[in-house]
Parts: sequence; C-alpha cells; structure tokens
Amino acid sequence: MTLAEAISTTATTEPEDVAAAMLAIGQRARTASAGLALAPTAAKNAALRGAAAAMRQDVDRILTANAEDVAAARAKGQRESMIDRLVLDPPRIDGIASGLEAIAELADPVGAVMAEWTRPNGLRFERRRVPLGVIGIIYESRPNVTADAGGLCLKSGNAAILRGGSESFHSSGALVAAMHAGLLEAGLSVDAIQLVPTRDRAAVGHLLRMAEYVDVIVPRGGRSLIERVQAESRVPVFAHLEGLCHVYVDGAADPDKAVAIAVNAKMRRTSVCGAAETLLVDRAAAPDLLPRLASALQDAGCALRGDAAARELVASMEPATEADWSTEYLDAVLSVAVVDGVGGAVAHINRWGSHHTDSIVTEDSGAAERFLNEVDSAIVLHNASTQFADGGEFGMGAEIGISTGRMHARGPVGAEQLTSFKYVVRGDGQIRP
Amino acid sequence: MTLAEAISTTATTEPEDVAAAMLAIGQRARTASAGLALAPTAAKNAALRGAAAAMRQDVDRILTANAEDVAAARAKGQRESMIDRLVLDPPRIDGIASGLEAIAELADPVGAVMAEWTRPNGLRFERRRVPLGVIGIIYESRPNVTADAGGLCLKSGNAAILRGGSESFHSSGALVAAMHAGLLEAGLSVDAIQLVPTRDRAAVGHLLRMAEYVDVIVPRGGRSLIERVQAESRVPVFAHLEGLCHVYVDGAADPDKAVAIAVNAKMRRTSVCGAAETLLVDRAAAPDLLPRLASALQDAGCALRGDAAARELVASMEPATEADWSTEYLDAVLSVAVVDGVGGAVAHINRWGSHHTDSIVTEDSGAAERFLNEVDSAIVLHNASTQFADGGEFGMGAEIGISTGRMHARGPVGAEQLTSFKYVVRGDGQIRP
Repeated sequence: MTLAEAISTTATTEPEDVAAAMLAIGQRARTASAGLALAPTAAKNAALRGAAAAMRQDVDRILTANAEDVAAARAKGQRESMIDRLVLDPPRIDGIASGLEAIAELADPVGAVMAEWTRPNGLRFERRRVPLGVIGIIYESRPNVTADAGGLCLKSGNAAILRGGSESFHSSGALVAAMHAGLLEAGLSVDAIQLVPTRDRAAVGHLLRMAEYVDVIVPRGGRSLIERVQAESRVPVFAHLEGLCHVYVDGAADPDKAVAIAVNAKMRRTSVCGAAETLLVDRAAAPDLLPRLASALQDAGCALRGDAAARELVASMEPATEADWSTEYLDAVLSVAVVDGVGGAVAHINRWGSHHTDSIVTEDSGAAERFLNEVDSAIVLHNASTQFADGGEFGMGAEIGISTGRMHARGPVGAEQLTSFKYVVRGDGQIRP
Repeated sequence: MTLAEAISTTATTEPEDVAAAMLAIGQRARTASAGLALAPTAAKNAALRGAAAAMRQDVDRILTANAEDVAAARAKGQRESMIDRLVLDPPRIDGIASGLEAIAELADPVGAVMAEWTRPNGLRFERRRVPLGVIGIIYESRPNVTADAGGLCLKSGNAAILRGGSESFHSSGALVAAMHAGLLEAGLSVDAIQLVPTRDRAAVGHLLRMAEYVDVIVPRGGRSLIERVQAESRVPVFAHLEGLCHVYVDGAADPDKAVAIAVNAKMRRTSVCGAAETLLVDRAAAPDLLPRLASALQDAGCALRGDAAARELVASMEPATEADWSTEYLDAVLSVAVVDGVGGAVAHINRWGSHHTDSIVTEDSGAAERFLNEVDSAIVLHNASTQFADGGEFGMGAEIGISTGRMHARGPVGAEQLTSFKYVVRGDGQIRP
C-alpha cells in the first residue's frame, strides 16, 4: 500500500456519533492488541522502518496537511510558540522518520525474562515481559508526538489510540497514514495505531471511560489536561505532572560547578519539564555564592524572583510570592530561596516540588547522600543538571514522557515501561499438598 | 507500652464526622509514610516481632474482642463459612503472630538497587526501590488480613490504612493495638498502621477519594466490593478480581498427571482464588480422558456441569449454561467443556477467564509453549496445579493478594510489589550540551 492509498483509508470526515466511533476504536484496538502481543520483533521493526520510508517518500502530502493546520491555527490567532511546535518542514519530517528508525533499533522488551528461579518442589518460575495492552495517549498539538508515541507503543507490542491536539488534526492524520503504510507492509493490523477521527472534545471523555478496552492513559500536556484526566479517568493513568525542578547549592558546593549547573538547569532550554524553576541556596554559603549565581543567571538572560533573604544579598531580584514556589515558569524566570542546609532544601522540595527531578550541588558526600535519600522525586541528581531528565539521556532511546506518579512507571517512560509481565511456571505434574 | 495501654489509645467510639475522621487518618498516614520510608530495616523488623510478642502475650484480650464480633455475627444470622473466617482461637492467633515474624525474616525491599549503569558522559545511574507511600486496604471480615496486610505494608516502608469488614471490627482493633505496641517499642509512629475507626460504609467512599493522601488501594473481597472500588476510586487500584481459573487437558496429556492436577486444582481447597472453576478437555482425547477425569472428580465430591459434547461422554453431568463459563463457584462444582485443541482452549480462556491463573496438562512441548505464550493471564502453568497461585508458593514469603490487573503489580503481591523506585544519578559537574 502506498501512502496515498493509506491516506484514502484514513477517515477524513468526522463521525456524527462520537460515542459509537470511540467504542469501535476501542474494540478494534483490543482485538489488534492480542495480535500485536505475539507479533515477532522483525515484523514490528519492519513496520517502524516502513513508516519512516513512507514519511520520507511522501513529504509533500504531509506538508500539505500540515499547512492546512498551520493556516487554521494562525487564523485563530494562536501564539507563535504553539505554531512553532505545530509547523513541519522537510528536516523535521526527516527527524520524525529517523526517530522511528531509532525505535526499530531498540531491543524488544516483549518476551524478555526478568527473573527465573526454581522452587524446592521442582516448579520452575519465569517472570516474562508482556505488553500492557491498549494505551491511550492524549497530547498537545505536536505532530512529532503522533509518531514517537505510536512508534513506542508498537515497539512494546501495545495498540495505541492517539488523541492529539485539535490544531494538529490533519498533520497527525498524514503521519498516521504513513504508519499505517508501514504496518500493512509488515503484515500487521492498521488498528495497532489509531487516531481519534474527531476534534470533538467529548471523544476524550469516552476514551477515559473505556476501561474495558483501554489499559492505560498517558496524558501529555498542561496542568488543566492532566487534572481533567486524573479527575475523570476510569482507566489507570501514567501521571505526567509538571516539572517543578530544583537545584540546591549546598554550603560545600564547588562554586564553578554550582554556576554551570544552575545556568544549564534553567537556561539550556526553558520549555522542557526538566528545566529548573527554583534555586535553593544554603544560608551558610549564600553571601559568597548567591551574588555569583545571580549574576551568571542574569547575564544569561534569566529574571530572578527571590525571598527576603535572597534579596538582601542580591537587590536586583524581584520579590517572590508564595505562588512562585509552585509555579512552573517554562520561561527565563527562576525563583530563589535561601534555606538552612540540606535539611531545609529537602523540606522545601518535598513541600513545593512535583516529585519530578531535583539536584544537589555539593562536594560533601554526606550531604549528597542525605539529599538523594530524602528528596521524594522520580529523579534525584548529585552534581549534575536537572536537564538530564530525559529518556535519551538515561540511555532508554526514546520516551513517551516523564511520569511523576509512583505506580508502575516513574521517571522516563520508554518502551520497557510500557510493558507488564506474566509468570510462566513449568512443572512435571506437581500438585499442591 | 503494653497491649492494654495500646488498646486504650485505640479509638473505640465511632466518630460522628466520618469525613473529618478519614481526612485526619489520611494526613497522619502521609506524615508517617515520610518517616517510614527512611526507617532502618532493624526498626521495622523489631516492630513486627514486637507486635507478634504483644499478640502472644495478650491472647485473652484478643479472644474477648473476637467473641464480641462472633456473637454479633451469629445474632445477625451470618453464614457459617463467614463465621469460620472470623473466629480466632489460640492456635490461630499464634499463626497470625508467626506470620508477622516470617515477614520480619524477609529481605527488606526498600533501598535495593534494581539496576545501575554509567553513561558515556560519566553520569552514574541507579534505580533504587522506595516505598509506594500510603496504601489503603479494604477487605472482608478476616482478622488475619489485618495483621498480614499491616505487616507487609510496614516491611515495605508504607503506611497502611486498614478497612476491614464490619463484622471483624473489634477483633481487628485488638490486633492493631498489638501492632501499635510493636511500633512504639521500635520507636516508629503508630500512624504507620491505622484502622478505620468506624463501620460506616461512607468511610470507604472517603478513602477512595483521598488521592492526596493515599497512593494505592488494594481491595480484597467479592465481586461487588471490587466493582464498587474500581468505579468510585480516584486512587490507583491493585485490581484483585475473582479467580476464574482453568485446567486444560490436552490430547497429549499424561492421563495420570491430568487426573491428579484436575482433582487438586479443584478440590484441594475450593474457596481460594486459585481453585479451578472450568475444566477444558481436548476433543481429540475426550472420549478416553473425560470419563476418567469425571469419575475421579465425582469420587472426590465434585459436581460437574458440562457442555453438550462433555455430556455425551459423561451422562451424569448436569448441563452447563453460558453463565457457568464466567462463574467463580468457590465450591465443589466444576464446569466442563470440550474444546478443539490448544487453540480452542486459549480462545475459551481469553474470552471467559479473569486473567488470573490457568494451566495446561500436556507432554507436547509445542502445545505447552503456545498455551503459555497465548493465554493472557497473570500466571500460566504447564503440568502443575492452579492452586500454586499463592505468594508463598512463589517464594515471596507473604502476599496481600493476587492482582489480575496489568499495571505495576500482576500476580501475587508481596512486599516487593508494594514498592516504587527512584533514579539516583551521580555526576561531577555534568551539564547537558
């Protein structure tokens, strides 16, 4: 099947009965997931590579679909930062295709034996990875997520139901058509990756209640989306809350490392969830370190909002209010507080943070170990930037997001985290006494 | 603190404002969980052993509380099977205490390093087990669960909120008082194990909505409880559905193993979730095997309900209706169907089963591997009884139940399954390019 043929099979008219359409999608996904769970690694990889080839082959069609989305978004007066995430061009499409090829290169998590042991009665136990089943992904208008999320679900043997932001409706449809071409070439069901064929927000409500057909929901987006999902969902959710990340500069910090890490954690990219939002400085070293940290950050273009103690040392800071301790700026703004040593830092982070990623800068290994033990976050770092909060940097190859929940997946969610397991037990006639 | 003193601190009057009481319990549990997460293994084990000692020391007080429960249950005309699970006697109390001592002997899962690796930039990654946080357990009127569940939560560093069946109210209170004595002796907060101090069913509703204070709900009980929990809960749930377990006797089965396994899987104990509820027999071997299986089961006291093909071979079976394929009898009753080989068995099990535990009896390793791969259940066995579905038989030491969900925990839920993890990353000044 060519991309053109695949596109022609992808629904382009929005369904009138959203509930019925979602039910049908759920049922098809459940059926497809049974086949995908048993699909050979080679078939899944062929589908991923075929999808990448289809995207490269038919760049023009994808660009046309994207232009329609971009024009509509501009007509609605969307912000430029949103438009920037929406726009595709040939290099970006090539990057999306390369991303799928990189997922094909990853080890297949399905079937991996996680543990094996034998009991005194001779029963041999094996704990073996299996897919989760059907994964619903609800995300913002970023076409690349359509391919990344669909590709990771496919690699991990899960059927995907994709619900992208409505502004990326046509772009996502063109990318999914390319993925369908890859699935068909590989002999797999196109129902492995389905795009919700409507911009009607009611579709999300249906998706969140289809516990019979959906095993887990992965929401990616702003606070309001996540809160809606957590309030409404009857399906388990991989919580992806905001990243309220902290850098704590201890009294025993190496000043050069502290400056480099604070500037990198905040300013390398301000829009990622691993960007630092609050700098904590040990009271013992604040008179020496805080002015130096502040001028390096300000030189890099960052606005600072400090508590009273911080502003006594750096008068150019704006005053911070309590709301600043729980604000994810995603911008060149940083709140600054002076705290009493590592204990004060831990207390501040566990009270105000989002259990995402937090870093201590210190040469005192006792202080570092206390911070690493006591800060209750998915990722805790010693002498490194919070911007390493990324599946690629962990060596996972690709991620669908960073989970701030504690159940099942925590931290970067890659192909392996999209699996469950089963126990396979082999005997030769054992009965239980 | 003696058990008598501990009991005097345990609320005995039911609160008037259930919502406020539950909120206070949640807040105390959250606070206690932070301390428990960092509690040394020795302190947790001392608390478990101290609780066991307190139970043995003050058997009479526990028996008095239990007698009050049993008298009330009899006055209400409860079934004898329910009364049997409720009644405590000195050997049962000793068994409960020994269970806590056995949990003390288990390895502490908290702090265990699950994986470690170093990236080319020198960052050293460690994935380390941490507690889940606060666990709410809702269970039937079985006093032993109070101690087992509380003990497992304590061992895994979690605060427990226990909501036992109302018929076991006083018995559970006396056992929790003993656990409080152990916690106090070990210098740990008694808020680590709290019993919901009311029989008001509204308390369950509050517990299910306290997502801020409760990290996971473990429901144990009948279908109606589980369904209520899954419908209402705003907190993630470890689903413990019923065990609709199957034994499939393949055409290539060893007849002696088939008979021994079928009889054991059904009749060893009929009231456990790992008891078989349906026997599937390969059409190819049914004429030879089914009469022999049927008479062995009937001789053991089991009533059989067969489909048409089965009844043609064994006329003494009652006819099965469609409802029988999805009925968990928990009694000496077994449904019997003739299926077309391993493919027919897999289709029947994946359609009608509860993804709990299923077994194939065969000498054909190809058929066995197909069954083990394709049956989508937490536990799949080859030539062994389904009654091995038990954490102790897996070598886990103790379990809080068998999860039929796919998220986080699947199969037996022991101390290790009650943990989450965090990533600890150590650098020497790394920033992200």
